[in-house]
Amino acid sequence: MSDALSTLRRELAQIEDLVIAARVLEWDQLVMMPRGGAETRAEGLATLNRFAHELFVRDEIGELLDELRPSEADLDPDSDEACLIAVTRRDWEKARRIPPELRGEMTRVASAGMEAWAEARARDDYASFRLWLDRTLELKHRYIECFPATEDPYDLLLDDFEPGMRTDEVRRVFERLRPALRDLLASAVDEEVEAFVAGPYPRGAQHELSLTVARAFGATEDCFRLDPTVHPFCISFATRDVRLTTRYAEDDLHGNSIFSTMHEVGHGLYEHGGDTALDRTPLATGCSSALHESQSRLWENVIGRSLPFWRWFYPQFRDGFGSVLADVPLERFHRAINRARPSLIRVDADETTYGLHIILRFELEQELLFGGLTTTDLPEAWNAKFEELLGIRPPNDRLGVLQDVHWSGGMFGYFPTYQLGNVLSVQIWERLVTDLADAYEQVEQGSFGAIHGWLREHLYRHGRKFTPAEMTARVAGGPIDPEPYLRYLADKNASLAAA
Amino acid sequence: MSDALSTLRRELAQIEDLVIAARVLEWDQLVMMPRGGAETRAEGLATLNRFAHELFVRDEIGELLDELRPSEADLDPDSDEACLIAVTRRDWEKARRIPPELRGEMTRVASAGMEAWAEARARDDYASFRLWLDRTLELKHRYIECFPATEDPYDLLLDDFEPGMRTDEVRRVFERLRPALRDLLASAVDEEVEAFVAGPYPRGAQHELSLTVARAFGATEDCFRLDPTVHPFCISFATRDVRLTTRYAEDDLHGNSIFSTMHEVGHGLYEHGGDTALDRTPLATGCSSALHESQSRLWENVIGRSLPFWRWFYPQFRDGFGSVLADVPLERFHRAINRARPSLIRVDADETTYGLHIILRFELEQELLFGGLTTTDLPEAWNAKFEELLGIRPPNDRLGVLQDVHWSGGMFGYFPTYQLGNVLSVQIWERLVTDLADAYEQVEQGSFGAIHGWLREHLYRHGRKFTPAEMTARVAGGPIDPEPYLRYLADKNASLAAA
Repeated sequence: MSDALSTLRRELAQIEDLVIAARVLEWDQLVMMPRGGAETRAEGLATLNRFAHELFVRDEIGELLDELRPSEADLDPDSDEACLIAVTRRDWEKARRIPPELRGEMTRVASAGMEAWAEARARDDYASFRLWLDRTLELKHRYIECFPATEDPYDLLLDDFEPGMRTDEVRRVFERLRPALRDLLASAVDEEVEAFVAGPYPRGAQHELSLTVARAFGATEDCFRLDPTVHPFCISFATRDVRLTTRYAEDDLHGNSIFSTMHEVGHGLYEHGGDTALDRTPLATGCSSALHESQSRLWENVIGRSLPFWRWFYPQFRDGFGSVLADVPLERFHRAINRARPSLIRVDADETTYGLHIILRFELEQELLFGGLTTTDLPEAWNAKFEELLGIRPPNDRLGVLQDVHWSGGMFGYFPTYQLGNVLSVQIWERLVTDLADAYEQVEQGSFGAIHGWLREHLYRHGRKFTPAEMTARVAGGPIDPEPYLRYLADKNASLAAA
Repeated sequence: MSDALSTLRRELAQIEDLVIAARVLEWDQLVMMPRGGAETRAEGLATLNRFAHELFVRDEIGELLDELRPSEADLDPDSDEACLIAVTRRDWEKARRIPPELRGEMTRVASAGMEAWAEARARDDYASFRLWLDRTLELKHRYIECFPATEDPYDLLLDDFEPGMRTDEVRRVFERLRPALRDLLASAVDEEVEAFVAGPYPRGAQHELSLTVARAFGATEDCFRLDPTVHPFCISFATRDVRLTTRYAEDDLHGNSIFSTMHEVGHGLYEHGGDTALDRTPLATGCSSALHESQSRLWENVIGRSLPFWRWFYPQFRDGFGSVLADVPLERFHRAINRARPSLIRVDADETTYGLHIILRFELEQELLFGGLTTTDLPEAWNAKFEELLGIRPPNDRLGVLQDVHWSGGMFGYFPTYQLGNVLSVQIWERLVTDLADAYEQVEQGSFGAIHGWLREHLYRHGRKFTPAEMTARVAGGPIDPEPYLRYLADKNASLAAA
């Protein structure tokens, strides 16, 4: 066994090297590359991804997995070795089901579709994108047909981001959230937007303050970078090499880099916290999209929009921006960054309305794929449902159906994980507080080491070893449950109203 | 034929994608990577280089080359196709001669040797590095034994950087330079170092001025980046994606980023100027180390240290640094950046003494490899020869034999190309001036487009299509010749003395 295992490890490490190299190329393209490099870069990425895929789906990998099967039962099921074999087998069996031609076509259409979307969005021209969406949907159906039928065909799409999660679990959570979030929104205090929200918040000060918070959370200089991009993201090349990006709005407090930085730091701490023994294995990343998002949201919202956090950080933050916040007391500032209010763009939404943006997408993508909704009727369906859920109607498609890149790249099944992440963030925090009862007192002191340590111990270090359901049970003490999240929101909104 | 050729092209393009990816990883490591990423990065680079090498030395590539041989005679020998086949055959036959074990050992020893050198240099402890140098020399001998004997075994080492160049050609050039440079140095005006050389030259202004010159030379924003590093370098990922780095000394005019930037821009314009049809082929780079260096030196020295250049740029440069140059007239400034004076460190040497630093290394590395000089005696041999050539004696090994990284990484045969580049830079410039008689008048106007265009037309666009000898004949009108360079230096020194 040890021979086959070390061969498997070596093979996977080499494949992982190619996967990581592709990630470096992607990061470079988005953060550093002069635009003249685009054409050659696209070829390079295609080559790396193809080599990595071809090496992985070889018969030899399957033979090694077969060879390991008899002795697998002797391994501790929690050991790195057992998990590596199990996860690899799952990935390999899944990857083998997709014919190379379909994979190639999906890659090409995703790439061209994203370009078509970017153009369509810029010109507010849904019609020019519609045929790409049709092709993408058709490929999605062909993809689904590669697998044995499941209870709900959407299960197969979810599985790419939440391995093993079923659509009816998501539906159960969202059916609870749908009316509850609307009630919360209806009862939220609707006051005027405060003048200080419009800034100005100079970019240099945003950067310094964002770095201060990133370092305080645990994103140390020897293992993390923070760079500017149009769309913030996190990507890692090793547990000790994590790249974060952020953006700087000078005229809108909600777009202050402090928030996108805390969000990406959350993702980054998860990647950084994996056991270094998992480096260069397929286990060296987070468990699932929802669990990943739970960490970005925990650091951005549960900690980063809390009153204790701002009791600590507001003096520095206010001083960093000259006179704009000089006369604004802590409580008014805290209310401004937390108030619930319907808005058109998902990524700008507050914690209360965010879930409604997701529920809309979750319902529409199922109708598009399996419910007879045509791409022609999609914009109107979007606008109608938006009005139903949020009470306002998008004035155009750019602020409506064209706002997100995901569908253009074929990422159906991804959206729900954002909201599952929000739900999980509060479940995990509640569990953390049963061990660290003074967690918010520590936050108020600007002390995050114990919180970070708890999350590392209970979640981060395991990387992708366990299934999302197993990992959720371990870190949150049970299956996904919307109640803690709804309590948290209700408490927050009540405290904002009272303040 | 067209089938075999397009298969070969496709195979080479994929290999080139891996080679380029490795270059992106290297650039990232030197310019961007948090230090925690080093271990995983080393593995990633090793994997990419190994895959690229294994794909290249396959029998299939040789079979394609064989298949192409009969129809090769029908091709225009200057065509991209004919050159691609010829260069690939040469590279393939050379690469096939090195057994994989030797290649692996060379890579490992180079990597460990460079680390040992960095430590030894930091602690001025040659003894701790000596055994690594012995291992490196031994591997170099094993490398040489992989090839049929040549007139001079050093020919084989030169060939890695100057394909086809013979040691006796280099010796002939250096034997002419050796006494001539010493005479020039002896007759140079030796005056005190001017106070303004010590600055201060604030980093921000250096950066802005360096970018201004880079853009004026033709390093446009859509295809070039300029970033800070400890050791400046240039690397390219495509003709339209070239990365330059520079460094900023605030207390030494000679270390002002303007000079290292002009140097790297020269390398960069060569990489950038290749015909885009050569992208993703092994022809998409410069012809040889010496021809590459000719371009960094042409832009840095022949243009960038000329009086016409500073007639144009000095007003901006002086204004950029507040009061430090306020009372310094152009001629005094120009003399300060050009004066000949013995110094210990090669990379800081002026144009007159630079060649003596190289001749010393060229002679010593031959004695080390083939002349019976032991690594034990090397430091004393270095110091004695240094005194003989430059009239001063290094006070320690850090400022002597330990100053350069090259030998620690196994790069024997590289040093002479630096000085050949200096020689070629003036030959090429003289040839350029026969077509563009007013080249220096254009420089004085800050106009570099015609010069850049001439170099692109006569050198850059050809990439690595021709042998260095062929390319030198095309661009310089004949073989390498030290006389123009010696005239240029004599004229410069005379004008400095007269000024």
